[in-house]
Amino acid sequence: MDWSAIAASLTTQGLEVIQDPQQRKKLSTDYAHFSPILMAQLEGKQADLVVLARSEPEAIAVIRCCVANQIPLTVRGAGTGNYGQCVPLEGGIVLDLSPMQRIISLEPGRAVVEPGVKLGKLEQQAKQMGWELRLLPSTYQTATVGGFVSGGSTGMGAVNYGTLFDPGNVQSLTVLTMEAEPQRLILSGEAAQPVIHGYGTNGIITEITLPLTPALPWREAIVSFTNLSSAIAFAQNLAHQDGIVSKEISIQADPIPQYFSSLKSYYQPGAHWVMVIVSELDWLAFTQLAKASKGEIIFEQDPQSPGKKINLIEFNWNHTTLLARAVDPSLTYLQVFFYRDVEQILALAKLFKDEIMFHIEIMRIQGQMCLAGFPLVKFINGDRLEEIMAAHQNLGARIANPHTYSLAGGSVQPLPESQLIFKRQVDPLNLLNPGKLTD
Amino acid sequence: MDWSAIAASLTTQGLEVIQDPQQRKKLSTDYAHFSPILMAQLEGKQADLVVLARSEPEAIAVIRCCVANQIPLTVRGAGTGNYGQCVPLEGGIVLDLSPMQRIISLEPGRAVVEPGVKLGKLEQQAKQMGWELRLLPSTYQTATVGGFVSGGSTGMGAVNYGTLFDPGNVQSLTVLTMEAEPQRLILSGEAAQPVIHGYGTNGIITEITLPLTPALPWREAIVSFTNLSSAIAFAQNLAHQDGIVSKEISIQADPIPQYFSSLKSYYQPGAHWVMVIVSELDWLAFTQLAKASKGEIIFEQDPQSPGKKINLIEFNWNHTTLLARAVDPSLTYLQVFFYRDVEQILALAKLFKDEIMFHIEIMRIQGQMCLAGFPLVKFINGDRLEEIMAAHQNLGARIANPHTYSLAGGSVQPLPESQLIFKRQVDPLNLLNPGKLTD
Repeated sequence: MDWSAIAASLTTQGLEVIQDPQQRKKLSTDYAHFSPILMAQLEGKQADLVVLARSEPEAIAVIRCCVANQIPLTVRGAGTGNYGQCVPLEGGIVLDLSPMQRIISLEPGRAVVEPGVKLGKLEQQAKQMGWELRLLPSTYQTATVGGFVSGGSTGMGAVNYGTLFDPGNVQSLTVLTMEAEPQRLILSGEAAQPVIHGYGTNGIITEITLPLTPALPWREAIVSFTNLSSAIAFAQNLAHQDGIVSKEISIQADPIPQYFSSLKSYYQPGAHWVMVIVSELDWLAFTQLAKASKGEIIFEQDPQSPGKKINLIEFNWNHTTLLARAVDPSLTYLQVFFYRDVEQILALAKLFKDEIMFHIEIMRIQGQMCLAGFPLVKFINGDRLEEIMAAHQNLGARIANPHTYSLAGGSVQPLPESQLIFKRQVDPLNLLNPGKLTD
Repeated sequence: MDWSAIAASLTTQGLEVIQDPQQRKKLSTDYAHFSPILMAQLEGKQADLVVLARSEPEAIAVIRCCVANQIPLTVRGAGTGNYGQCVPLEGGIVLDLSPMQRIISLEPGRAVVEPGVKLGKLEQQAKQMGWELRLLPSTYQTATVGGFVSGGSTGMGAVNYGTLFDPGNVQSLTVLTMEAEPQRLILSGEAAQPVIHGYGTNGIITEITLPLTPALPWREAIVSFTNLSSAIAFAQNLAHQDGIVSKEISIQADPIPQYFSSLKSYYQPGAHWVMVIVSELDWLAFTQLAKASKGEIIFEQDPQSPGKKINLIEFNWNHTTLLARAVDPSLTYLQVFFYRDVEQILALAKLFKDEIMFHIEIMRIQGQMCLAGFPLVKFINGDRLEEIMAAHQNLGARIANPHTYSLAGGSVQPLPESQLIFKRQVDPLNLLNPGKLTD
């Protein structure tokens, strides 16, 4: 392929094209380095060109170019994913949609945005109106809405709203098809399902409508426990309190808190932390529950306070792994659904002792509070990692493998046939990051 | 007792005293006539005097008078209870707190009110501020806040917030003790528990702090099904949708809808209705779910619409029984927790055919969606009613018996010891409607 000619052609059409090798390398990576397995598998995979789109017509120009020249196309946003969502498996063009930053409309209950809008910016503007996003990942300060919908799934708010897959949490998506004459599909409600968490392989998202939820006055707290089972029991109990509204409940088992350097003044060896964001309106009931559960509130903060330094959500979800790896790069992690089976966790803690550290998020799955584990694992080698995952599965836990780059490989369940049919419709030439959906 | 002298003494203190026998009779009753058993048991029980209190000092004057003269005292609000909550079992004084109608403060997230404030008025004022009550009974237009906290338990909103018992749903209560020198206790959080649903026997409530929840744009709908199990399955499925926010989900099995005369243009014989109030923001996802469940949306209404005639909540909770009895006074009802066991309901429907009609409300109990039944029963006699209740219990359902006037008798679980201890502290002479707490 004559990449210079392709670049020249796109530049002529007014597009910004990046050919610099270092820049191309940087824009062909995300946080897949969380996994040493993925890091090895994705080594050296990078775009031949990176193209930035500032608008839908610019995105269409790139699609036309790719289809005409049979060039693989990989879409990216801020690159905060950690399964190589934006790594071009067969090279070609990486289309960076992060310049598409227009908030098309923002009204009570609903936001319509372009894919490059940062979640943090949207959240901030929604809050000024008294609303907030239902779900917000720990990466929200830099992550884009398009990236979250394409490659993320949940975050803060999961305890109430589940995941992006739950009908209602994405109201509609506008996608461009990967055809010589790109179609612009407006997918509302269930029609948008195949695109959600599709890693950008099921059409190119150019517009997203998300519901908002009324903002509450939230208070952040850390409740410390001297043993893991008490911490889990408290977290579950809190999650089941119908009169205490929370939007984040996580368990950070000892010794994970030691990795949170900005919280080190609160750290005590042997402490298991439950990190919560709870409605200020229910604060009294919350503190009474913590006391009755023999938990000690070692940290509390009104997030609206002007002197705020700590942002509790940024210690949870994928940020736990990020922060731990910043201290100890030999760590990796797993993604495990324990559902409601605490015994699985306690058995694994006993079985693997120091090799696993339990980071657990409470999330609602089909109306039921569940324990979703993101355990930190000391990486020895791939075989040992497989052994550890097998041990989880033998106990009945379900693994969503974060050490595989294909969507199918990382899913708990096989991809629905409807998604594969949709894929063939919107990308008949299989140009959208080939090998990413199913390898 | 020289009631004229007592009346004169109270009148002298500026209190409004009612001696008229018809008025006294009227103000000694509530909706206990839902139960023919209770009606017989409570027959003829009425106040010797009714006293109206417009303020806390007036309530204190009545307490002093009762304690000095060992007069039983029964507190009432609007009298919308249906277990004889305001029927004075041993006569004496009925203290009507409905004139205490001051909204002390109303701010985002929180309302502080006197007990006589009508729930409907509070809801309306909260809505003007963009907030609403977490829980609202079907009787809200006339019921008072004090009556709801003392004798009610839940209503619309139960699908999210459970009941008044759930910590957080009542922030604090101020109660007067039944002593010669009445104490004014401010009970916050768990300290208020013994008073909630205490039928006014655990101190006299003079101030209530309730949390509010942000108001959403709600839409009301009726989804019709051709068989009961499909209707229940849809209701449960909807309740478990993490991305579709509802605040009311009920099942009105055939032929209950025939009793809803103002909805008769929607009635079709054999139809089982699921009545819902769902967020307008999630309307598309809701309609797609209804369609996938083979339900037909036969009615929908934006509750904010100016021409609104139907108020969906007023067909549910205790209003179902009220409306059915307006057509057929031989009907009575039960209160049954089926939890998640649909088979119990289907087995009972088969067993009792036309004798029972299933009205079921979905409510959250300790974080889990549950089926709470308020079946309508054709009343034959007390023995048959006992048989029917026994059949429910034999299948594993739990009965909260609405055919007994004492709090202990109607509770699913024995009254907690803490409540009995609290009772002795606040009412050492056992003057607050003696026999009502435990008979």
